[in-house]
Amino acid sequence: MNYVNKLPIEPKITLLGAGPGDPELLTLKGVKALQCADVVLYDALTDEALLTYAPIAAIKLYVGKRSGEHSFAQEAINKLMVDYALNYGHVVRLKGGDSFVFGRGYEELDFAASYNIPVRVIPGISSAIGVPGLQQIPVTHRGVSESFWVITGTTTSGEVSNDIYQAAHSNATVVILMGLKKLAKIVDIFSAAGKKELPVAVVQNGSSANEKLVIGSVSTILASVKEEKIEAPALLIFGEVVSLHPSFKTLIQPYVGMA
Amino acid sequence: MNYVNKLPIEPKITLLGAGPGDPELLTLKGVKALQCADVVLYDALTDEALLTYAPIAAIKLYVGKRSGEHSFAQEAINKLMVDYALNYGHVVRLKGGDSFVFGRGYEELDFAASYNIPVRVIPGISSAIGVPGLQQIPVTHRGVSESFWVITGTTTSGEVSNDIYQAAHSNATVVILMGLKKLAKIVDIFSAAGKKELPVAVVQNGSSANEKLVIGSVSTILASVKEEKIEAPALLIFGEVVSLHPSFKTLIQPYVGMA
Repeated sequence: MNYVNKLPIEPKITLLGAGPGDPELLTLKGVKALQCADVVLYDALTDEALLTYAPIAAIKLYVGKRSGEHSFAQEAINKLMVDYALNYGHVVRLKGGDSFVFGRGYEELDFAASYNIPVRVIPGISSAIGVPGLQQIPVTHRGVSESFWVITGTTTSGEVSNDIYQAAHSNATVVILMGLKKLAKIVDIFSAAGKKELPVAVVQNGSSANEKLVIGSVSTILASVKEEKIEAPALLIFGEVVSLHPSFKTLIQPYVGMA
Repeated sequence: MNYVNKLPIEPKITLLGAGPGDPELLTLKGVKALQCADVVLYDALTDEALLTYAPIAAIKLYVGKRSGEHSFAQEAINKLMVDYALNYGHVVRLKGGDSFVFGRGYEELDFAASYNIPVRVIPGISSAIGVPGLQQIPVTHRGVSESFWVITGTTTSGEVSNDIYQAAHSNATVVILMGLKKLAKIVDIFSAAGKKELPVAVVQNGSSANEKLVIGSVSTILASVKEEKIEAPALLIFGEVVSLHPSFKTLIQPYVGMA
């Protein structure tokens, strides 16, 4: 007869950033966290190949949000996460990119803290930096850009973020996540700031096998995106650094530097 | 008698971001690149534990820059990198953080391209996002910040970047790398923008065992940094998101929200 020595459950949560899509862009620390998961709650933007690092016996639950149900879904995820931690132990909350870059990670952290459940954060490669980099577009480059500004294209109100208006007047490389649906409006904002000739890149499915890139300028990018049938998820890069991409010289009229 | 079949050398370069310091924040793709390196050229900010992933026979060379010799050192690194690739094959250029976040990665990529040596980029976790995240300070959070702006504190000219003046007037979370020596000036810039009460965090050696955190406001941070003897490398975070850190409530006078 076997006596199963059942240990008391120690609830804990790991907020884990999976990186931009390529499963090899997960960190070693991320692999270790998954290896000792009792439960994995994962989003639409994470590659399911990552789940193979978790024990076979671990519960793996897809909690990707359906559009139009944002606030309800986030509450449901928070509650699921805490329930699973209390009943099973170690919950890994696996998110695309980094949990704190428009990932609502702090809402989950805060909710868990209200139940006194310890939360550990493991950063992930944000697509905001990784996706331009994989295209060999540097977000910063001496003499071209001393900063980069990362903004969400989709705010709670549904309006374009005011920060995009400010960013259009700045010298920063501007990276916009979840902005494809607002591209026409964003192009208008940059045009109104006198930046019609500013180089722009749009990357669909960055870091994945089916990655697609379109390069142009503020005045041409909208037509190119339609022609190439670019779809979400896509990342927008506005800045002179885009002109460093090898295809820029061949695709575009010579770029006249801005005053 | 053995016939050694010597293959022709195929020069290639991998620009590899090592992440913010903790060697477990390297990606799986980064490990694979190191495992097939013939040469590793590494910077001051990367953990030497990472070198153990490279073959024993691989050449490992420290190319950290001494201060005051920036431009010469970068040219020397470019040349070393190309010479090693031509003579040994696969060179992994290992840098702290991400190669394109103030890492001068594009200069190396461009130099290699002028010799027709293929370059692959593997992004790394930038301290700009990872270090605040490990401190559970989210760079973005609904209702608090819709964007973050990452700026270098050390420009080629030695002056504070103009982008910091713009950023002080923005709604973005402002993350400044290599800015500790300019903290007094940066604090003046935020004060002049009417943000004396804005929360500020300074993190020394982020993600490492000897990490140190100081939290305050624009008006108090300079004294706290001196008192705690904070040294470089350190990262500065200016923004209301800093008030979400658990220690903020206990250390600081109640924060009065800004208009």
